[in-house]
Amino acid sequence: MNDIDLDEVRSWAREAGDIARRHFNQGTGWRKADRSWVTDADMAIERLLADHIAARYPQHGIIAEELTHYGTDREFVWAIDPLDGTASYVAGLATWCVSLGLLRAGVPYLGVIYLPILDDYYWAEPASGAFRNGQAIHVAAPRDWDGEDWIATPSNTHRRFELDFIGKARSLGSVAAEFCYVARGGALGALLSRAALWDIAAGLALLRAAGGIAAGLSGTPLDTSVMLDGRLLPEPIIIGERSHVERLRPVIRDRRSQQS
Amino acid sequence: MNDIDLDEVRSWAREAGDIARRHFNQGTGWRKADRSWVTDADMAIERLLADHIAARYPQHGIIAEELTHYGTDREFVWAIDPLDGTASYVAGLATWCVSLGLLRAGVPYLGVIYLPILDDYYWAEPASGAFRNGQAIHVAAPRDWDGEDWIATPSNTHRRFELDFIGKARSLGSVAAEFCYVARGGALGALLSRAALWDIAAGLALLRAAGGIAAGLSGTPLDTSVMLDGRLLPEPIIIGERSHVERLRPVIRDRRSQQS
Repeated sequence: MNDIDLDEVRSWAREAGDIARRHFNQGTGWRKADRSWVTDADMAIERLLADHIAARYPQHGIIAEELTHYGTDREFVWAIDPLDGTASYVAGLATWCVSLGLLRAGVPYLGVIYLPILDDYYWAEPASGAFRNGQAIHVAAPRDWDGEDWIATPSNTHRRFELDFIGKARSLGSVAAEFCYVARGGALGALLSRAALWDIAAGLALLRAAGGIAAGLSGTPLDTSVMLDGRLLPEPIIIGERSHVERLRPVIRDRRSQQS
Repeated sequence: MNDIDLDEVRSWAREAGDIARRHFNQGTGWRKADRSWVTDADMAIERLLADHIAARYPQHGIIAEELTHYGTDREFVWAIDPLDGTASYVAGLATWCVSLGLLRAGVPYLGVIYLPILDDYYWAEPASGAFRNGQAIHVAAPRDWDGEDWIATPSNTHRRFELDFIGKARSLGSVAAEFCYVARGGALGALLSRAALWDIAAGLALLRAAGGIAAGLSGTPLDTSVMLDGRLLPEPIIIGERSHVERLRPVIRDRRSQQS
């Protein structure tokens, strides 16, 4: 059951994006117990995608941001963020997306990320590579950096990290979108601190298909299989082409790990 | 000659946005002498807007980002950024805009900012206030802050500033767009470090009409009339509703001014 119809998955992402666009700027957000945002759109999209997957791939499990969580011990598990970047969405910002990842034995296998405002599709296929709107994409090739180069960083960087980086640091407001901009070679890399499997599963499939890697700030390899229970990243990770990741790691200091 | 046809100015901004959208993701950027980005779209939009203004308001002066600079000693001077956020535009990011400000005796008088990807218009009228797509907007009312509140910060914040701020810090990639999100009450405030008159003229008119203020990090009032020769902000500024600006100022430390 590893024949996934990617055209169909992309059509689900478009349906999801249409829902999000309809609710956009309608001001219907509320705060969850952890004070983060959720909206009617998150809930409606998760239901839509979970229903599609259950109907089409009943043997697969699902772990999603809001409510859906079953069969995560199965060979194939979908990790869904119905609306990655809900806080940006609520703020009327442009960068948020629908993220649909599929793991096989705990390892990101394929992914579709759709940015409705830009109408940009990113996807990874296990055999053929990474794509944006049908064009092959690749991470930034090894090269020197200058002040116009940029990386994506968390929105709490000013409190948690010190960066000795010559270029720009931007917080896009959506982890899945940050994977897209790294995978297409726009951002040199990204630093991610707080993320669950649904935030990163599709992005990791895309990143790897585009020639990139993900590494813990300490150098420990990232093991996504332990995140199937919903736990967050055990430590911040850096993503990008290998040489950029290796140069970024020593110039990023995590104030928390220094305190411990 | 202070009867400005705002509907017409908005129609120019739409024409400009159409040009930008046509060139978007076509990869036609190059680097200026200062290594910042410029594209065919910047040049074409500036020509379009300068031609419209010269034909309709021949008594007015213009200062624009790329080439146009005349009559800046006149009562009315347009400050134009044909494409604010060119680096974001070149990177395929969503947040960039057309910014058309009009100064009267060196003071921001009206402004139109158009974000083509979101199809969002922001404008300020001297008499009636600040608007987004026809709805009145206001800066965030005085209130306590929590971890989900956000401010906009420059993309070099990690090198230049220390922020003791409880919430999120985002670099949107466009100063004019940052004014919009502050003026609509989404962002509590914004810190701006490197900006010329064309980056801030429309935004300042919008901000003031939405109930906000701009203040130098040192507390010195901002005098835009000295920027008519093209010089940059003499020091970083904070924008927002007055109480938020007053609470942000002491928690932002400029490493450069400490070194001097």
